[in-house]
Amino acid sequence: MADALKIGVAGLGTVGASLVRILHQRRNELAVSCGRAIEVVAVSARDRTRDRGIDVSSVTWYENPVEMAKSADIDVFVELMGGATGAASDAVEAALSRGLHVVTANKALLARNGVALAALAEEKGVLLNYEAAVAGGIPVIKALRESLTGNTVNRVYGIMNGTCNYILTKMEKEGLSFEACLKEAQRLGYAEADPAFDIEGNDTAHKLSILTTLAFGSQIAADDIYLEGITNISIEDIHAAAELGYRIKLLGVAQRTETGIEQRVHPTMVPQNSVIAQVDGVTNAVAIESDILGELLMVGPGAGGNATASAVLGDIADIAKSRPGQQMVPVLGRPAKALETYRRAQIQSHEGGYFIRLTVEDRTGVFASIATRMAENRISLESIMQHSKQLEPGKPQTIILVTHATREDSVRRAIDAIKSEGYLRGEPQVIRIERPKDA
Amino acid sequence: MADALKIGVAGLGTVGASLVRILHQRRNELAVSCGRAIEVVAVSARDRTRDRGIDVSSVTWYENPVEMAKSADIDVFVELMGGATGAASDAVEAALSRGLHVVTANKALLARNGVALAALAEEKGVLLNYEAAVAGGIPVIKALRESLTGNTVNRVYGIMNGTCNYILTKMEKEGLSFEACLKEAQRLGYAEADPAFDIEGNDTAHKLSILTTLAFGSQIAADDIYLEGITNISIEDIHAAAELGYRIKLLGVAQRTETGIEQRVHPTMVPQNSVIAQVDGVTNAVAIESDILGELLMVGPGAGGNATASAVLGDIADIAKSRPGQQMVPVLGRPAKALETYRRAQIQSHEGGYFIRLTVEDRTGVFASIATRMAENRISLESIMQHSKQLEPGKPQTIILVTHATREDSVRRAIDAIKSEGYLRGEPQVIRIERPKDA
Repeated sequence: MADALKIGVAGLGTVGASLVRILHQRRNELAVSCGRAIEVVAVSARDRTRDRGIDVSSVTWYENPVEMAKSADIDVFVELMGGATGAASDAVEAALSRGLHVVTANKALLARNGVALAALAEEKGVLLNYEAAVAGGIPVIKALRESLTGNTVNRVYGIMNGTCNYILTKMEKEGLSFEACLKEAQRLGYAEADPAFDIEGNDTAHKLSILTTLAFGSQIAADDIYLEGITNISIEDIHAAAELGYRIKLLGVAQRTETGIEQRVHPTMVPQNSVIAQVDGVTNAVAIESDILGELLMVGPGAGGNATASAVLGDIADIAKSRPGQQMVPVLGRPAKALETYRRAQIQSHEGGYFIRLTVEDRTGVFASIATRMAENRISLESIMQHSKQLEPGKPQTIILVTHATREDSVRRAIDAIKSEGYLRGEPQVIRIERPKDA
Repeated sequence: MADALKIGVAGLGTVGASLVRILHQRRNELAVSCGRAIEVVAVSARDRTRDRGIDVSSVTWYENPVEMAKSADIDVFVELMGGATGAASDAVEAALSRGLHVVTANKALLARNGVALAALAEEKGVLLNYEAAVAGGIPVIKALRESLTGNTVNRVYGIMNGTCNYILTKMEKEGLSFEACLKEAQRLGYAEADPAFDIEGNDTAHKLSILTTLAFGSQIAADDIYLEGITNISIEDIHAAAELGYRIKLLGVAQRTETGIEQRVHPTMVPQNSVIAQVDGVTNAVAIESDILGELLMVGPGAGGNATASAVLGDIADIAKSRPGQQMVPVLGRPAKALETYRRAQIQSHEGGYFIRLTVEDRTGVFASIATRMAENRISLESIMQHSKQLEPGKPQTIILVTHATREDSVRRAIDAIKSEGYLRGEPQVIRIERPKDA
């Protein structure tokens, strides 16, 4: 049997503690599967006295993760601290520079600096694995980076934030408001005290930017993502969606188009009879559409200490099983130097169906006016309906439109024209429709 | 850049021809992703004159695949001939013996002889990859063999035969008989002229036996699988399932139990609101429940030349990217020598819910008699109902029972007791219920 693989773990939060515990509990099975033992020999975390339910008395303790990366006697540096800059970034760079393999769950770091880190890993001939950074336990990095080699990907999309999916599912199943569901998510620990990063879509955007690079071979462009969160999704939208045969999910979507790559994160209507529409609660799902394989959908736990630790463990096991030499898995699917410049397709040129909910004054001619403004912008309507529950004469009425595939800028122009008519009450609600291949 | 990886392809049917075409068309992208060129330098097929839409004029042609395995100047032997014995088996063995890497899509070969071939590959220090052998393009081998390393799997199950799923879906959606749907499947090329291997469940069983070994670390036991096909599923069963909130799928299920490992292939009722219940047509799906990761479900194309070729291509790319030395990925998840003896749990000890459809004479006391026989065998009923559409006095009536979790032998005893009462008409229909974690 080969020498043990020596691991240093930086960050002993939920994921780090789970990982250390599992590496200890499963050490015999892991040694059999990997052909060598995997040993945690160093850890780094701030508070040495905290009870984490794991025994780290026999390993070398570092206050400073960068110090561990630079000097610990390890083969693999596992970064589970989080944060795009600062200690996590410095430590990963130090570890790679020294020729250590790195495993990280840090999506923010990769979204910000992934290409440079990949280039460094490739220059040093070491592995940089990050399965846990996107959609937790779902092996989507492996699928894109390894299984789909040679495929041309056309679209990748998914539910990648458990907090948002929990809230939207609960709103639908229990008829509760966004605010009530967010509070419940916070109570259950599914949402942070400051939930903005999740519910505004930033977390999904970080993950999407990594998938985009793997899917399309372009440089990471996390700042070039069109972003809309779920905060203004109302129970009325969810009910209307259900009536029309849709469910609302916060999707991250990256798509190859004629003008470049679309990256967008927004509330999305997906047909009720599609598989992804059934993905409820904190569960994540990622779909990949490619030209040779076809559509692949993966559903699983997107967060949680154990699920994330499982992905980290798979990454470590891959290193334990491999004996990297000149050839190796390129970090981002192709060598960092061979990544293409990212060419952004603007959201204005997005084509797809749209759900539009308008609150209007109860006036003769409103229906006709709306239909005319749509027609003037060459928007073909699948349906236009007055919401049945609100037919009280004299009171504001809700009108719901569903369009056939059209361009975003046409929709925006039509809505501006409708706004100028003066019968609108409040802001129109516009939700893009996304059609999986199976629906 | 490293030397080109030289490939020999044995078998130029749909998958083989797709693979050769794709390797040619995508040669530039593949060279970038893999860090080296991948070249087809030898092929083997019987008929040299057939037009396959690919140019193989410049490669060495072998009439005999074993000859190619023994003497061609190649690094990787790709076996796409099929068949558990004969040329495919001889050629794979010859290739491994010579120290060539092997990629195969041959589930029958692995089901019959996988452990010996894995041992040979490991002895020679070469890779034996077979992603395409189970569920076509779905990367389930990679998930089990790599991503889930260190996890204890409790259950793996899936829809692994597109022919059966197509037929069951069509029966449900169009209300047609099994025979009519089978004919349509044959017309569309989804079913063979002799469909027995698919519809009797043998194909699913071969695939399941491979997943079982990867999931539980036990030796392959393809002959120890409880097998029931879909030929006696009637449209009445499908309608009754729908009324009760279920759909019928042919599942392969492997499960860890107290008495050993259950491997079974049979028509199964799955709750309508589960994700796997939405998997329609020829699409496949595999679910893996493990203790650290949780539940992972993968959905995708299970067959077809391109989807299968994509999986083969991923296997080849893994070889191109790796530089195998002493450490490597064990073929069956753990080294062949470390696989445990398979301990079979008998179907009689299976525990789960049951759907039972009985056709009975219209007699007073039948309902009470059935309920009594169930109670005597400690079977707790979730529901018992007379099928509403058949309430014509004097004519045979349909009674449908759904049980709570109970043992298979209890159900069999209860049914034997009911049979002895004399009021049954025809054979009882018994369909096991499987509950995904999400439903």
